[in-house]
Amino acid sequence: MTSGGITSRERLARAALTRIFEPGDETGGRWLERFGAPGLLARLTARETGRTSLTGVRAQRLGGYRLRAEAADPERDLAAVTAVGGRFVCPGDQEWPSQLDDLGDARPIGLWVRGRPDLRMWALRSVAVVGARACTPYGAHMAAALGSGLAERGWVVTSGAAFGVDGAAHRGALAAGGATVAVLACGVDVVYPRGHAELIARIAEQGLVIGELPPGDHPTRSRFVLRNRVIAALTRGTVVVEAQYRSGSLATARDAQRLGRFTMGVPGPATSGLSAGVHELLRGEGVLVTDAAEVAELVGDIGDLAPQREGPVLPRDLLDPTVLRVLEALPGRGAAQGREIARGAGTTEDEALGRLYELHSLGFVERCGDAWQLAHDAPTAGGARRGGA
Amino acid sequence: MTSGGITSRERLARAALTRIFEPGDETGGRWLERFGAPGLLARLTARETGRTSLTGVRAQRLGGYRLRAEAADPERDLAAVTAVGGRFVCPGDQEWPSQLDDLGDARPIGLWVRGRPDLRMWALRSVAVVGARACTPYGAHMAAALGSGLAERGWVVTSGAAFGVDGAAHRGALAAGGATVAVLACGVDVVYPRGHAELIARIAEQGLVIGELPPGDHPTRSRFVLRNRVIAALTRGTVVVEAQYRSGSLATARDAQRLGRFTMGVPGPATSGLSAGVHELLRGEGVLVTDAAEVAELVGDIGDLAPQREGPVLPRDLLDPTVLRVLEALPGRGAAQGREIARGAGTTEDEALGRLYELHSLGFVERCGDAWQLAHDAPTAGGARRGGA
Repeated sequence: MTSGGITSRERLARAALTRIFEPGDETGGRWLERFGAPGLLARLTARETGRTSLTGVRAQRLGGYRLRAEAADPERDLAAVTAVGGRFVCPGDQEWPSQLDDLGDARPIGLWVRGRPDLRMWALRSVAVVGARACTPYGAHMAAALGSGLAERGWVVTSGAAFGVDGAAHRGALAAGGATVAVLACGVDVVYPRGHAELIARIAEQGLVIGELPPGDHPTRSRFVLRNRVIAALTRGTVVVEAQYRSGSLATARDAQRLGRFTMGVPGPATSGLSAGVHELLRGEGVLVTDAAEVAELVGDIGDLAPQREGPVLPRDLLDPTVLRVLEALPGRGAAQGREIARGAGTTEDEALGRLYELHSLGFVERCGDAWQLAHDAPTAGGARRGGA
Repeated sequence: MTSGGITSRERLARAALTRIFEPGDETGGRWLERFGAPGLLARLTARETGRTSLTGVRAQRLGGYRLRAEAADPERDLAAVTAVGGRFVCPGDQEWPSQLDDLGDARPIGLWVRGRPDLRMWALRSVAVVGARACTPYGAHMAAALGSGLAERGWVVTSGAAFGVDGAAHRGALAAGGATVAVLACGVDVVYPRGHAELIARIAEQGLVIGELPPGDHPTRSRFVLRNRVIAALTRGTVVVEAQYRSGSLATARDAQRLGRFTMGVPGPATSGLSAGVHELLRGEGVLVTDAAEVAELVGDIGDLAPQREGPVLPRDLLDPTVLRVLEALPGRGAAQGREIARGAGTTEDEALGRLYELHSLGFVERCGDAWQLAHDAPTAGGARRGGA
């Protein structure tokens, strides 16, 4: 999945660095830029600690990094993520979502990923739906409705897997048979919150569970805060559904704004403290949205992001080989069931369905009840395909 | 009250014209501009109907105007409004609210007015609060809270006296002991809706009941629609509290927008059809507001509109003589009860209180519990007054 990417030395070093630096550590980001991942790791693990080129932090902090570097065991971490069916995606990998580069020195060192779909492809068509943990029934309803409505329109619903709004948004997307990404503030093999064990397992099965923290790491207050910047950067826009003043969801929205992403809010009663933060946002730069259609209208039509007839941005050549096989298993005319397509592509039906959702989100295929067919305006880059199977 | 104004011939002619032309008739407005009120009336009542300078309408419509002109009895109408303690205010009168001139050819020919306060002064500090007749309890609550909150801040709450949001806004202002104006789509002596007989009577007693239609005239659908433009033009801004798509309240908001007034909306649940119109407005030019403080912040501070230290816009010289007497009855230092002030001004206590609210809304006086005192930054135009009684 992380094919066509970086060297295993680079990947191993980056995996180690995710255990050394907390998410968003800009000092680490600057050193990484300067020395490269293996070079930085070598400097952090060097025996003699006297003269060092790692400047800009106090000795005590540098000592902390060194202690963590000594304890890091990236091979074990990579094995652990593989054990849960995951992988470690790095800048330079074909699957790396390049919009994260907008975070500059705070860009994640790499992302631990569970789930079959291609993160880069999904991120291109993703919208964040976030909000209060202790939301009202109204907030939960709106989050679920947005989750399913966006998923039905081919958007990937991204959230933080928390109780309340986050969970309702993920569930809405799953219920619509759509795509959803959970960005965790802990290792992708750690279940947090516990009460969402089943939900997170379903997301890992049908969608993507991702995070910056290495396997086994637990969430902290600051990790939740820093996780929000990844949600904001990864997506085309952030919708806030119920948020009190100064809440984490508003922080995500502000991050999104700073990054030039769309920032949206769902209104509620002016008498509700849980809508007060959203209304504050809407009195500023945020755009008021009341349903998935309005969100989709704002963040862009399917056509805007789907591989285009003229440009080379997402030609079929860039598709993962399995995805391409699934695409080529679709009939030239008319629709086919997932089972038939899986047979043609030589994959399991589950695998084929996952790929079909991916292709759908990229504008290559259309759903037709239970069946799938080539999109009428499917991109043709990589060879004319339509009209003959 | 309409002192310093126009000739009685002009007033009589305009009174007649309010019976001939429907509110907002731009043909009438153009003719009025061209011939003046007495000249236009003379042309409409002239015996020979052959060659006329009244061009731009079909013969049938002109015939309709002539029939109404024949039946008009402005002396009777003026007597009827006087009988209910009212007056007829025209452009050129000192009490005329000049912001109505922004309506161009659709400017009211004159306004029939019941109530003691000076319309011009009140209009300068007025905000419209409008919305659905069949509002929810939430809408009624918000309208009442805005009505009282704005009134407490010295703003004049203007609305249409309808059931639902309008009524709640008026009642909120009255409950706060504040100022409110009802703009009717019928004669100011006609009670519509019937169920608001008591409310309208209270507004006429404590505030102002105004309208374009002569005494006895009843509302029609188009008169409701055209009434909205007066609410929009008269006020500094319009707040919409609950409105369905394509509702009259939204029309008022759009009028306000066109006239360069502030347009605001109170959000509600995205699931409520009665908030759908407001949300549409907020997705456009409208500003989301959740309480009176936010409205007041937007439309301007008391200081913005209060007579200013430097400019001559609203100097004390322009105050109605009774208002000035009440102002001069306030002690130079400290506060006084309404009773004492009334004694000093030689008015009834009710009269004094009405004037004090007017002065309050203009920034001349401040409330201090039950008592009143000169504002610290009261305007001094018209002669230094502070520091010595």
